[in-house]
Amino acid sequence: MFVQEKVISIAKPITEEAMTKLFCSTSPTKVAIADLGCSSGPNTLLVASELIKVVNKICDKLGSQLPEFQVFLNDLPGNDFNTIFRSLASFQKILRKQLGSASGAAGQCFFTGVPGSFYGRLFPRNSVHLFHSSYSLQWLSQVPDGLESNKGNIFMASTSPPCVLTAYYEQFQRDFSLFLKCRSEELVAEGRMVLTFLGRKSQDPSSKECCYIWELLATALNNMVSEGLIEEEKVNCFNIPQYTPSPAEIKSEVIKEGSFTIDHLEVSEVNWNAYQNGFKFNEAVDAFNDGGYNVANCMRAVAEPLLVSQFGEAIIDELFKRYREIVADRMSKEKTKFINVTVSLTKIG
Amino acid sequence: MFVQEKVISIAKPITEEAMTKLFCSTSPTKVAIADLGCSSGPNTLLVASELIKVVNKICDKLGSQLPEFQVFLNDLPGNDFNTIFRSLASFQKILRKQLGSASGAAGQCFFTGVPGSFYGRLFPRNSVHLFHSSYSLQWLSQVPDGLESNKGNIFMASTSPPCVLTAYYEQFQRDFSLFLKCRSEELVAEGRMVLTFLGRKSQDPSSKECCYIWELLATALNNMVSEGLIEEEKVNCFNIPQYTPSPAEIKSEVIKEGSFTIDHLEVSEVNWNAYQNGFKFNEAVDAFNDGGYNVANCMRAVAEPLLVSQFGEAIIDELFKRYREIVADRMSKEKTKFINVTVSLTKIG
Repeated sequence: MFVQEKVISIAKPITEEAMTKLFCSTSPTKVAIADLGCSSGPNTLLVASELIKVVNKICDKLGSQLPEFQVFLNDLPGNDFNTIFRSLASFQKILRKQLGSASGAAGQCFFTGVPGSFYGRLFPRNSVHLFHSSYSLQWLSQVPDGLESNKGNIFMASTSPPCVLTAYYEQFQRDFSLFLKCRSEELVAEGRMVLTFLGRKSQDPSSKECCYIWELLATALNNMVSEGLIEEEKVNCFNIPQYTPSPAEIKSEVIKEGSFTIDHLEVSEVNWNAYQNGFKFNEAVDAFNDGGYNVANCMRAVAEPLLVSQFGEAIIDELFKRYREIVADRMSKEKTKFINVTVSLTKIG
Repeated sequence: MFVQEKVISIAKPITEEAMTKLFCSTSPTKVAIADLGCSSGPNTLLVASELIKVVNKICDKLGSQLPEFQVFLNDLPGNDFNTIFRSLASFQKILRKQLGSASGAAGQCFFTGVPGSFYGRLFPRNSVHLFHSSYSLQWLSQVPDGLESNKGNIFMASTSPPCVLTAYYEQFQRDFSLFLKCRSEELVAEGRMVLTFLGRKSQDPSSKECCYIWELLATALNNMVSEGLIEEEKVNCFNIPQYTPSPAEIKSEVIKEGSFTIDHLEVSEVNWNAYQNGFKFNEAVDAFNDGGYNVANCMRAVAEPLLVSQFGEAIIDELFKRYREIVADRMSKEKTKFINVTVSLTKIG
């Protein structure tokens, strides 16, 4: 949660710039914004409110009338949209208050939920002004085929054979290219996207900076294998459907696909335990201010459904207890970071 | 459920005509349809699929390309959108198959959920082509003020004082007028609406044809009061926030509000137990083909949340047991019907 909030805040100036340019070049009377992979937590509505505030500021400056907003919140159909929808009334009340005091009159803002995979079309043609996505696009549409030789690993790792790295990379290429094609169809002319990936700086896709966090989870799993708590075969055929691209790989796909120009491509870092960045420190959660606990919990939120479907519910608590200890140990000895790649794109006329 | 399916089927030719006219006059490349008060049952996606099939048929006839559909499913934020969203994949698969065989190529269809009250704005200006609503608009935005003298009743009844009938009617006028205003802002030029109300034919709002089903529920409640199972005061201050308008009342509000012309205004009847109409008879539910059971269940689905918040969970089973018996007895002795009013409207340029 904290890592994600931090990531949204890092991408904020880029998103603001994209929105400002979009607004100044097209002055729409209604603005359709879509957040892809919105999830259903405290950050779900954060992006939308930031974007609405930006437009409010622009309109204030220009003395122009506020547009109406339609905010599309997208995630897979299994996402808990009910919880988002039930929190909207109080969210909108707060937003209206914040906007009201800044600009005198708040624009209308309409929220809708869009269930479905962003590796396919989600909206009609020419209907969206701005796509935003934070920490979702590193997820692949599926576990790549051809990972049989990735035994003992659950992701790309330093011990993965080259064919495994290739299989992952090719899946990323297919997925991201399809993503770009779908979004370019859905965007209006001069529409924009701001996408933040969990990524890497290194040219090597099995580099420690992106794979370490999964390697430590593999360590916990393999410990449990050696104690007979998990079947070895189950770990051997389990792989995380994720790819953490480098800026160069993202750039290369955008150019190849051909629908977008790149306005910005930035790399940033967030400590595994985002508290260490001095961001969003909350006294009330001081008791939980334990790096291992935070990171293990964050990873659990992300990986639990995958792990449960492969290994069953029963091993999960024990697995994350071990993972937490391993992570805490590593964090006390090394500076551990997530690498983010944020790219801002404009649809080519 | 069966009553609602029957009602949708009665309104179908009117909806088809509205869609055909809309399509022929504007030939949109993308069509935005909204179903207001979609609920989350087996009929939720029925309307959307019927409308899409109509457009497919038109395009087949004209040899023109299929538009893309954006279907907005609206209901209050407490509605179970998760269940709708999780059923979409299989629904779309079936729909694609049905359309594919009819027209060779199926248009894209994108579903979104819109949480909120239709007695307020839900969509940006000029963004929706067709609104549909079935059996939702008889619900008022609130219980009218000024019903203190409606003691022993839970709705308008033959024994209600005139001020009660006035309070109900004025609430309907305010609500429906606001509804028309909001929808006219949201519709595109020449946009259309097909609305089906639970209504009445009589000029008298306390007429048996619309109030009887609630009077029988009041009877069940009052029986329990007389046995000391429910406090009398709780029944005295409980009222159902519903108004079942006559065609003349609907017409009068539409003319007064001024944004729409009326294309059709039709009255139809459905037996309380829709099985009796020979519609959707399913052998498997033969055991439940008991009028009292069906109607009581249908009314329970509708009224339970209101009853629970006033009387608590504990009395509900007993209440509906009694209600079922009362309803079954009446149905065996009289021909009991729901009256529907369907109105088809076009936004004035």
